[in-house]
Amino acid sequence: MDQDTLGHHISQRYDAELSDIRNKVLEMGGLVEQQLVNAVRALADRDRDLAETVVRSDYKVNAMEVAIDEECTHILARRQPAASDLRLLIAVIKTITDLERIGDEAERIGKMAVFQLKQESRWTPQVDLRPFGDRVASMLHGALDTFARLDVEQAIAVAREDINVDREYEGIVRQLITYMMEDPRSIPASLHLLWSARSMERIGDRSRNICEYVIYLVKGRDVRHTSLEKLEDQAREPR
Amino acid sequence: MDQDTLGHHISQRYDAELSDIRNKVLEMGGLVEQQLVNAVRALADRDRDLAETVVRSDYKVNAMEVAIDEECTHILARRQPAASDLRLLIAVIKTITDLERIGDEAERIGKMAVFQLKQESRWTPQVDLRPFGDRVASMLHGALDTFARLDVEQAIAVAREDINVDREYEGIVRQLITYMMEDPRSIPASLHLLWSARSMERIGDRSRNICEYVIYLVKGRDVRHTSLEKLEDQAREPR
Repeated sequence: MDQDTLGHHISQRYDAELSDIRNKVLEMGGLVEQQLVNAVRALADRDRDLAETVVRSDYKVNAMEVAIDEECTHILARRQPAASDLRLLIAVIKTITDLERIGDEAERIGKMAVFQLKQESRWTPQVDLRPFGDRVASMLHGALDTFARLDVEQAIAVAREDINVDREYEGIVRQLITYMMEDPRSIPASLHLLWSARSMERIGDRSRNICEYVIYLVKGRDVRHTSLEKLEDQAREPR
Repeated sequence: MDQDTLGHHISQRYDAELSDIRNKVLEMGGLVEQQLVNAVRALADRDRDLAETVVRSDYKVNAMEVAIDEECTHILARRQPAASDLRLLIAVIKTITDLERIGDEAERIGKMAVFQLKQESRWTPQVDLRPFGDRVASMLHGALDTFARLDVEQAIAVAREDINVDREYEGIVRQLITYMMEDPRSIPASLHLLWSARSMERIGDRSRNICEYVIYLVKGRDVRHTSLEKLEDQAREPR
């Protein structure tokens, strides 16, 4: 095998490794999304089996994070990537941290669904968290899609959705406070719903983080702590 | 200059870069710790000026995170580090993410302190969060000290403290629920205290994360998602 062919083979293998990492992140993202959807459904439908499945499955998310993290470290050590490959690996390391924490929040919602079943349902406020949970799940889906396509415009649109998520969350908190003030017997159940809504709101924040890593990856610029307006301007500038 | 002297110079400069990164992480840690201590004090003493200072200063934490992150990326690209240097950089990238989020939680506590001042103080539960805040601040201090000394035994001891933090947090939640149930007028103020306590509890989790990165850095093994007992066994094994 001459030098050129060898070089070609190595670079093919390297490309395959990078594309394998990206696929694994998307696989992990799919699992986390499923955990969230199940947790929201378990809470809304008072479905104990489904809630327990969510809590029991979190270890899978954790295992995937550790595995991808190790793969990134190995590639960093062996291939010594530069420029956009290096940014890809750093973006992956950060993205899987957020995905793992989204998994933790889904697990928390699952636990809340189990606690909720122990409360008498007549003291449980009639606040349906499903629409809010669905909105957050679709934001996470959008963030993962953005990562799959490396689409900066979409990343900005999805990050922007976080404003609506925050607004809806504030409304839910206000609503739950009125229930608690009207009848103190609703307080324990209201707090479980409040923690669940809080977890969903945090998932919105983390989905926004993932969008910011995609912008960093494509544009080579760190856009965290940047306002959405500036972010739009910057993302539209050519590199 | 002969090859050897040149190599020596480069490696000296490289060592200086790595040690500079470590110092910057500790500097960032010191700032975050100060933010937390001030936020806890502002909440306990109903000190509006101090609370506003905390909220206004969060941008400094964010700026440091971005700067250190960039420095890590540059070193990764230029020096192509292997083995323990690579682990150091990865541990730094993860540590500053947690530090930045601890800064966010301190900012949240500062905001809660401001909201709290708008509540009539007679409906504010007599729950002093200062001892809990101090415990969490000392856990964070311990985690940073662990990072400075790269001391695995200490990392385990500090990580273990998270169990006590979680227990104390549960007690505070229970206490606040009784206030809310006794007098619904205390609900808004109780919720502010509840969110603040929650932020403190999260800071305990993130301090534990930092300890785990130190173990990873020293031992070369990813110990996240490992129980504390296993972690102690593993950390004591020679590499």
